[in-house]
Amino acid sequence: MILELFGKKLKELRKKTGLSQEKFAYKIDMDRTYYASVESGKHNISLKNIKKIADGLDIPLSDLFKGL
Amino acid sequence: MILELFGKKLKELRKKTGLSQEKFAYKIDMDRTYYASVESGKHNISLKNIKKIADGLDIPLSDLFKGL
Repeated sequence: MILELFGKKLKELRKKTGLSQEKFAYKIDMDRTYYASVESGKHNISLKNIKKIADGLDIPLSDLFKGL
Repeated sequence: MILELFGKKLKELRKKTGLSQEKFAYKIDMDRTYYASVESGKHNISLKNIKKIADGLDIPLSDLFKGL
């Protein structure tokens, strides 16, 4: 459940940047199929990669979890 | 770096509960050597386990990352 919620939140935040999944993944140097699996809640992402995403979105880590 | 910061934050929050590492790990049904490695910043913990810890601390996920 938490993976789906996180993925959904991430998708919202990434869309706000105006970047596609592919472009965002490229920006943060992450495999795009891996990144897509995170947004769809299918991957139990690790803290290092969560941090990489927060940095790519230019937000504090805690904002990625706000309201979850 | 993020792993160490997270571990330090976690240790602070866990100490506030008054529980030892061992008792807290037992409470959340997590192996205590695994839990200890997370507090010491040696394990790249996954989102599911981060959620388990937040639930054990009875705080929202975002609070685990506040100030990191």
